[in-house]
Amino acid sequence: MSNQPTQAINEFRSNSSFDTDLMTCFIRGGPENVRNHRAAVTRVEKALGLDDSWKLPPQYGEQNRSEQLLQGINASRVMLRDQNDHGHELFHHRTYNYQLANAGAFNQSLVIFLPCLQYLASPEQAAEWIPKVRSGAITGTYAQTELGHGTFVRGLETTATYDREADEFIIHSPTTASTKFWPGSLGFASSHTVTMAQLQIDGKNHGVHAFLTQIRSLEDWKPLGGIELGDIGLKFGYNAVDNGYLRFNHFRIPRTAMLDRHAQVLPGGKYVSRGDLTAMYAIMLKLRSIIVNGVPYNLAQALTIATRYSVIRTQGLGPNGLLAIEIPILQYKSQHFRILTLIAKSYAGLLVGRNLEAEVSVYLVQLTKGDHSNSGYMHVVCAGYKAWASQLCADGADDARRLCGGQGYLAMSGLPDIVTHLHGTPTFEGENYVLWQQVFRYLFKCTQQLDSGGRIPKSMRYIADGFQEYSSGNGRSSIGLKCTAHGRDFLDPIVQLSFYRHRSLRLIFATSAKINRDTTDKEPTTAANAWNRHMMSIIDAARAHIEYTGLEAIYAQLSAIPDEYAMLRLVLDRLMNLYSLSTIINPYTTAGITFAEDGYLSFSQLEDIRGLADELLGQLYFDAVALTDAWDFSDASLASAIGCYDGDAYERLLSWTRQLPINMKANKNDGVFVPAWRGIIQPMMDGLKVEAKL
Amino acid sequence: MSNQPTQAINEFRSNSSFDTDLMTCFIRGGPENVRNHRAAVTRVEKALGLDDSWKLPPQYGEQNRSEQLLQGINASRVMLRDQNDHGHELFHHRTYNYQLANAGAFNQSLVIFLPCLQYLASPEQAAEWIPKVRSGAITGTYAQTELGHGTFVRGLETTATYDREADEFIIHSPTTASTKFWPGSLGFASSHTVTMAQLQIDGKNHGVHAFLTQIRSLEDWKPLGGIELGDIGLKFGYNAVDNGYLRFNHFRIPRTAMLDRHAQVLPGGKYVSRGDLTAMYAIMLKLRSIIVNGVPYNLAQALTIATRYSVIRTQGLGPNGLLAIEIPILQYKSQHFRILTLIAKSYAGLLVGRNLEAEVSVYLVQLTKGDHSNSGYMHVVCAGYKAWASQLCADGADDARRLCGGQGYLAMSGLPDIVTHLHGTPTFEGENYVLWQQVFRYLFKCTQQLDSGGRIPKSMRYIADGFQEYSSGNGRSSIGLKCTAHGRDFLDPIVQLSFYRHRSLRLIFATSAKINRDTTDKEPTTAANAWNRHMMSIIDAARAHIEYTGLEAIYAQLSAIPDEYAMLRLVLDRLMNLYSLSTIINPYTTAGITFAEDGYLSFSQLEDIRGLADELLGQLYFDAVALTDAWDFSDASLASAIGCYDGDAYERLLSWTRQLPINMKANKNDGVFVPAWRGIIQPMMDGLKVEAKL
Repeated sequence: MSNQPTQAINEFRSNSSFDTDLMTCFIRGGPENVRNHRAAVTRVEKALGLDDSWKLPPQYGEQNRSEQLLQGINASRVMLRDQNDHGHELFHHRTYNYQLANAGAFNQSLVIFLPCLQYLASPEQAAEWIPKVRSGAITGTYAQTELGHGTFVRGLETTATYDREADEFIIHSPTTASTKFWPGSLGFASSHTVTMAQLQIDGKNHGVHAFLTQIRSLEDWKPLGGIELGDIGLKFGYNAVDNGYLRFNHFRIPRTAMLDRHAQVLPGGKYVSRGDLTAMYAIMLKLRSIIVNGVPYNLAQALTIATRYSVIRTQGLGPNGLLAIEIPILQYKSQHFRILTLIAKSYAGLLVGRNLEAEVSVYLVQLTKGDHSNSGYMHVVCAGYKAWASQLCADGADDARRLCGGQGYLAMSGLPDIVTHLHGTPTFEGENYVLWQQVFRYLFKCTQQLDSGGRIPKSMRYIADGFQEYSSGNGRSSIGLKCTAHGRDFLDPIVQLSFYRHRSLRLIFATSAKINRDTTDKEPTTAANAWNRHMMSIIDAARAHIEYTGLEAIYAQLSAIPDEYAMLRLVLDRLMNLYSLSTIINPYTTAGITFAEDGYLSFSQLEDIRGLADELLGQLYFDAVALTDAWDFSDASLASAIGCYDGDAYERLLSWTRQLPINMKANKNDGVFVPAWRGIIQPMMDGLKVEAKL
Repeated sequence: MSNQPTQAINEFRSNSSFDTDLMTCFIRGGPENVRNHRAAVTRVEKALGLDDSWKLPPQYGEQNRSEQLLQGINASRVMLRDQNDHGHELFHHRTYNYQLANAGAFNQSLVIFLPCLQYLASPEQAAEWIPKVRSGAITGTYAQTELGHGTFVRGLETTATYDREADEFIIHSPTTASTKFWPGSLGFASSHTVTMAQLQIDGKNHGVHAFLTQIRSLEDWKPLGGIELGDIGLKFGYNAVDNGYLRFNHFRIPRTAMLDRHAQVLPGGKYVSRGDLTAMYAIMLKLRSIIVNGVPYNLAQALTIATRYSVIRTQGLGPNGLLAIEIPILQYKSQHFRILTLIAKSYAGLLVGRNLEAEVSVYLVQLTKGDHSNSGYMHVVCAGYKAWASQLCADGADDARRLCGGQGYLAMSGLPDIVTHLHGTPTFEGENYVLWQQVFRYLFKCTQQLDSGGRIPKSMRYIADGFQEYSSGNGRSSIGLKCTAHGRDFLDPIVQLSFYRHRSLRLIFATSAKINRDTTDKEPTTAANAWNRHMMSIIDAARAHIEYTGLEAIYAQLSAIPDEYAMLRLVLDRLMNLYSLSTIINPYTTAGITFAEDGYLSFSQLEDIRGLADELLGQLYFDAVALTDAWDFSDASLASAIGCYDGDAYERLLSWTRQLPINMKANKNDGVFVPAWRGIIQPMMDGLKVEAKL
């Protein structure tokens, strides 16, 4: 029985069209990275006792909130130690099981707290504090978000009031809504924070500044006087980390604790600005690019599980019940379509992320040279791709979960944890709807520049190119334009890019025109109403822009693929064709109607596209397992009874079920869950008389 | 501070356009129902100690799996007792906190096990067993699903082999995949099951039959010899119930334990069929209609929380940052659009469910008279609406969660539990993708009947009416048809129904034609391939059909609204107009492109629709709170720190946070989470030397 599933999976493995190991190298950036990463993951899994895939992972047992957190903090310790012992940074941006950095208790210290010091501290401050962070002598986090205030930083209420006599700042939480809430690792794992607070001097507000704040004693870890803090409890996901709350009660810190690279308060209270704060954006951009690069891994994890399960799971007598035997569920086109188009999205995310990482690197170098000219553009790029990738991957992973039916609903499938982890990403580091509006704000400014005969950044050239054709007639001049491609033309990236570009330009110019039309006077309220009235179009336009530039990035990456990976071009081309074409006709595409509503693509062209997508699905069918294997996830990192490499889903699921502590304990009592029987069921059956409170 | 949010909410309450209490009566079926339900819920909440909304609900604290389950079983006991003491059945289909029946440990016994006996047992069996179930002397569940077998019943592997000498059946689980897996309350709360197994007599398989099986001793609750069973562990949701597994090892039951209303095995092994098994469908139909009627409540719960929070939460300086003060997030059109269109969906679900319930009642009466003529149609209706409602509400509740930003990600918001509960519904009682195919199978048969000049059931008349216009030209004859409405015409239900009908007919006939075209010979494989090739279109067509008939049902309900609710027509009309129109232009509509791809609706008509939807959103803005209040959810049933009636989200969230056991315990240790500090952090800081295993 047990080797049947392995045979089914191996049939796929042996029929794949490409070299899986080579693809792994492509995904992970070369064979040395693959080796190092495997070795590090193996060491950590062994240290955590997770190296036997037949053993029930502890999180599926009887952990309460405290135990979940302890397991998470311990895992973070083990990763930190592995990095120190072996001199690498492989777990900086992703944990050993591919969760984003902010899921690791001590990662906040390296990924957020440290960069704050690097960008915001003066050289003297940096010299004092950075070595302590690096060595782990102190652990820190970034305390910005408050109970009542998120993305809108100027709205923060925490105050830092300068006390001239003591030459100190008094940090205070004046209201309930000003309670710091959500920072990762704040509850119990951090000794310090960078606290964002409104700087007040002599009753004057100088706006939000950053203050290095010690919150716990390094001797005994007790919160310092004037500090109240703790955990914010169970969350949808991220339960291995202690997102926390923090209240200040007239808490005093020295004047020199203000991070003063960009602004300083001199003894006596004179406020000196040393320049602009755009460097602060660099941290945010970097964090967003980490998200864009991270989330495709989580989607791919979910798909690794769903693909393997879809191959070994048989169900029903074929389409419309027309066959004589049960067939693997992957053969049903609804399953096949969803799995393969989702796999295509995971690779699309990978390639977009890689392109973005390169752009961010260039930009960060520019910044160190004082060149801020690209800041507006890079802000939009990172905001837009963060919104795009986080939603794409969260929704995709949830669909992967649904693709596993009842088993995907089990914690032991590993899918709920992956899904809920991803569902955090559309919200944190800039809520997606806010980000989409920021993207469009930039696009809108571009159209205004063009309207007034001005120039726009060359990175936005396609908008300038489209200005003549798309801007007249109140942005409706494009209605009536028709795509001239047909049949196999749609496999040509240039053709694909042309209708993504058309859609983006049409929506940008038409939406801008609507806003301009409704902004009838110079009153801010009128302008706000005009913007608000067309908000849904604004979001569609912003998304269309990012989907167009994202597709450009994907094909740019494929065109520049290094020679050693040339053998992968065929399958990657197919996959990106599938991504690009299926996005148009996938029932779940957000705002899919915008591809068709203006008649640019005719019904018969859409039918051509459906036909080609179907053809690509056929070509990629036997690649499904290899395309997910190639991400190289260990069994332990998936923590899935139904998604292990060997495909032995049912045996492992039954084995893990038998190992559940509640069952082990009941078995010791002859199969009875004693508290339920004695406390509830037996008395109930004796006349429903029980009054016992639980 | 604390009364600001209440003021903000009350501003909405006092500006609503209708009488909230009257709407509550409309939703709950009259004032007496409202009173009785409130009284019952209040009693149960009090008995469970949940009546103080400032007290942290226990599930947000430190519960492990066993404790979650105990709390759930106890709550189920309290509900059962309240029903017995007060002579009502209010918690049969929904728990006190509006979860579906299958979330209650003892509800399985009444909602699934009992109907099995009613429909499948002979009169003698029924007389023996039904009183015991009703009194609670035995508790039962329905054991169909196996580890390897779900929706496809014929694939079940559990065997019931007749042993002539002993005159018994031997129930056996021959493989791992045959393990019964998933039945609710199976783990620890049931004494009996109706076990579905392949009946084997003298080596001949007679197909799947139902066997009444005692699995636990009523004396000491121990599993009987030959039975292995237990819990299947943590799930995405539904953690208050013990979904379980069950293995039979040559387990013997008397011959008379086969439920023999429809088929019997005589002493000696003669198999007698007494008629068809369609009555079995009645149970399934009823369960599906319970789901359709139940899930809108859960969506409404999520929206009650999200709406209240969106009114009290302020963020940002208005659209595009153009205003001088922070405004409630509900004012942002993206939030406003999503909240109100989701509220419209919850009411759409309510009205569709009500219509369906009436149809099911009529059908069940027909069945008792032996009239099975409506079975095919009713199967499709229940399958289709189950797929539609479960997905609508699961997706909608998840969007409600996202609408609350970071706070929606907290367990204490109450939203994760509502969302994960709903996410079970697309999978159980028929996986939605399977159901959509069953719906289309029926539609396809209708088109085949029409093709061959036959007649179809009069409930499908619109398909017969559309035959001439839509079936020719290989189903493409409708391409080129144009909607002639414009402007305010689109507020007319008849106009709205016309384009929902057009879309449905176009997709049904075009998809049928494609399948016929590709079914080039009589080989089952060819037919299966043809079906498979067009599966995505099949699902779109099935959904379009259900969305059309659903809209018909909605307007039928509104037209027949009782006089005493006439005052509600204005707001309900607005709401259903919004539902109907926004479905077309909502970016998240599944297969939204199918409204536009054939040019039936022109771009300018779509812009008209967008304008009208925006107008409706404006008219309904101040009704948002009242429309959710009207569902009459108690604070305890929402279990939400951010969604209570008084709107005091921040104070309550901080209060609950301080009550978290992990924080209470740390506070007793001067603010230190001792196991983390002593076991992990302190040693780590002392040189990362710790080896302690957790």
